[in-house]
Amino acid sequence: MVSRVQPRVLKGFRDFLPADEIPRQRMLRRVVEVFEAFGFGPLSTPALEHTDVLLGKYGAEGDKLLYRFTDHGGRDVALRYDLTVPLARVVAQYRHLPRPFRRYQIAPVWRAEKPARGRFREFLQCDVDVVGEGSMRADAECMLVGLEVLEALEAPGFTMHVSNRKLLDGVLEGLGVVDDEPRKAALRAVDKLDKVGRDGVAAELEREVGLDAEGCAAVLDFLDTDARDRAAVRALGERFPEGSSGRRGAEELCALLEHVEAAGQAERVTVDLGIARGLDYYTGTIYETFVASREHFGSVMSGGRYDHLMETFADEQVPAVGISLGVDRLYGVLADLGLLEQRSAVADVYVALMDEEGWGEMARIARQLRAEGIGAELALRASKIGKQLRHAERQGFRWVVLAGPDERARNVVSLKDLASGEQRTATPSEVPGLVR
Amino acid sequence: MVSRVQPRVLKGFRDFLPADEIPRQRMLRRVVEVFEAFGFGPLSTPALEHTDVLLGKYGAEGDKLLYRFTDHGGRDVALRYDLTVPLARVVAQYRHLPRPFRRYQIAPVWRAEKPARGRFREFLQCDVDVVGEGSMRADAECMLVGLEVLEALEAPGFTMHVSNRKLLDGVLEGLGVVDDEPRKAALRAVDKLDKVGRDGVAAELEREVGLDAEGCAAVLDFLDTDARDRAAVRALGERFPEGSSGRRGAEELCALLEHVEAAGQAERVTVDLGIARGLDYYTGTIYETFVASREHFGSVMSGGRYDHLMETFADEQVPAVGISLGVDRLYGVLADLGLLEQRSAVADVYVALMDEEGWGEMARIARQLRAEGIGAELALRASKIGKQLRHAERQGFRWVVLAGPDERARNVVSLKDLASGEQRTATPSEVPGLVR
Repeated sequence: MVSRVQPRVLKGFRDFLPADEIPRQRMLRRVVEVFEAFGFGPLSTPALEHTDVLLGKYGAEGDKLLYRFTDHGGRDVALRYDLTVPLARVVAQYRHLPRPFRRYQIAPVWRAEKPARGRFREFLQCDVDVVGEGSMRADAECMLVGLEVLEALEAPGFTMHVSNRKLLDGVLEGLGVVDDEPRKAALRAVDKLDKVGRDGVAAELEREVGLDAEGCAAVLDFLDTDARDRAAVRALGERFPEGSSGRRGAEELCALLEHVEAAGQAERVTVDLGIARGLDYYTGTIYETFVASREHFGSVMSGGRYDHLMETFADEQVPAVGISLGVDRLYGVLADLGLLEQRSAVADVYVALMDEEGWGEMARIARQLRAEGIGAELALRASKIGKQLRHAERQGFRWVVLAGPDERARNVVSLKDLASGEQRTATPSEVPGLVR
Repeated sequence: MVSRVQPRVLKGFRDFLPADEIPRQRMLRRVVEVFEAFGFGPLSTPALEHTDVLLGKYGAEGDKLLYRFTDHGGRDVALRYDLTVPLARVVAQYRHLPRPFRRYQIAPVWRAEKPARGRFREFLQCDVDVVGEGSMRADAECMLVGLEVLEALEAPGFTMHVSNRKLLDGVLEGLGVVDDEPRKAALRAVDKLDKVGRDGVAAELEREVGLDAEGCAAVLDFLDTDARDRAAVRALGERFPEGSSGRRGAEELCALLEHVEAAGQAERVTVDLGIARGLDYYTGTIYETFVASREHFGSVMSGGRYDHLMETFADEQVPAVGISLGVDRLYGVLADLGLLEQRSAVADVYVALMDEEGWGEMARIARQLRAEGIGAELALRASKIGKQLRHAERQGFRWVVLAGPDERARNVVSLKDLASGEQRTATPSEVPGLVR
């Protein structure tokens, strides 16, 4: 006998027991239906990658958060940190994939973050990406599929915030910040606005980017700029010289808004120059999405354009854009709003057992019910019938099927409605009509 | 610019591109439907566990194959090796779970095996288990749900082979092998019958268990015993003394066969004393399942009873039994038999783009189609129409929707059937009827 081990999960990791996992899986099924209705196909990649595939894509902070180790063959390996870098690897590796390549992937990722409320070391990502199309039509498609997903999940009153990183690049260019490293440092500082406030961002911009007080103010003023519609964005763009990053960012953002308006989804979208996204690889459009009255939960759907990621794997520039549903965060929001139905049962009826010798025959009846499209959970013990009914009720069943030897001989069952207490006799093929 | 990294996957790991992943996900959706129709609910556990949770459950060979490392907090962690030990941990950890606890889990597991044809370091497990019921009704339910899954997946001509480990225990007891370690060594030797043949098994039994030639012959003769029906199993049981492991094994196996017969599924099941299962933790019933003419692919659905696993976590004996679909192996079998439809498209229709300015309006039409239940993949570029039609055909689309500015103004589309070449005008709400 081995010595007893304390049953426990690692800090920052979670079990999802059926009562939570049932509505979560139901959400994911709806998400997949919407993704596929837009023509996105499923992709599956390994949890472990060669470390060099992942390194240097997420910024220095991200690199440190990789779960990285040496495998049995002495290889340097790491658990994936997101689904975007593996996608870039796949596109570089399999050159025969169609362009545009539309794929979705729903899978866990791992980050050795300090666990906090709503922040975990393992969490599910739920991504759609369009690879191989540089026009804003691809960015618009990601927005449309994202909005449709949130509608399908009945998220109440959500708004997608959109910006373009080239605009901030333009502001930084105007302040003389043009090199890659200080530019990324500035983006990371700006991304912390919600967490550390204006003064915190200014301090980091001064320290990490070398901006003076005036420069910091210019950046912060830009983030506060109210430019919610196309006219305002166009006016903003005209502040930047022709051909500059800032001007191009404004043009891209205008084109994107125009597509979304024509598609009839403008009322769900707002320009928000204050969003930045923490990851290094974004190059243009960026998205974040908030549910009304639950903004403090954070963005439930985020993403953006990353036109240079593929170049780290292949001698080819492949434009790409994607959006990712934070399914656990949205789950938290919906649960907090009381919009999730918790239920421990997945089948439609509970089939009680009156005599243990009759179990096989009851299994045959349960099978008939399932063939008629009725999920049937069959009792395994002939405990007292009151106990079985209480068990069924506690699990969330409304209907219980019972059959003693006589009824089985006539191939009929008693169907009990736990809601009304009524009971009636029926053939297995009559049950679906009565239950629905 | 970072230096270029070669895009590649780790040895023994796989990407599933959409053409393979589409039928694979379709299979998994059917599997989930059957699991849930039997009342099994979903469970999700972390990929990483404290190493002590996993160690010592799979045998010394299994322990060596764990992907194990030290995390950022200095904890000894490992990737899960199967879904059964995490389930045992969950049951010990959350005492409020109902009994019997029926759960399914579909998730990857990791084993640092030597990669070979059909053997990978990361593969998907697809498990149902019944926890908290010691009677053979639970073992029968696992068989019934497993058989139903294979029927739902249209696996042709499969047979589930069943045995009970207590029978072999009885034979070993008769030979004086009663201690835990030599007993497990004997099981591991026997499990290699298919790989190393009778002589190989005999050599290992001699070397690892200390059996003499007569003892080896007794074990091998037992494995060859033809006992396909209940009468034969009962007769076999009578060779063992009353109350012995062997006698109990025969009684359990008879009871199991009786349930399966009464449930009407006996023709799919055969007793096979030659199966042993490699894992240490099995204590009674064991299953393996083979598809006719593709037996050499190995078992596509395996499992068994493990009544002592929970004791390693809690001061309580909790009986449990489960069965696991080898989804990738079955996928291989079905592909080899030409029974899988490969298709790169998931949507129903391809919506071509005649003018790039019209993209947003076409997105609105695509949205109407989706609202009618038709998956619509929308072109992102107005390339030559012949090129778009060829792309659609290559992706496996039969139907293409087209609309120029005039048609859009009238809210109609042209629907082209790529199979017949015919084209007709329709409103978006007429499309579903024409396509189906």
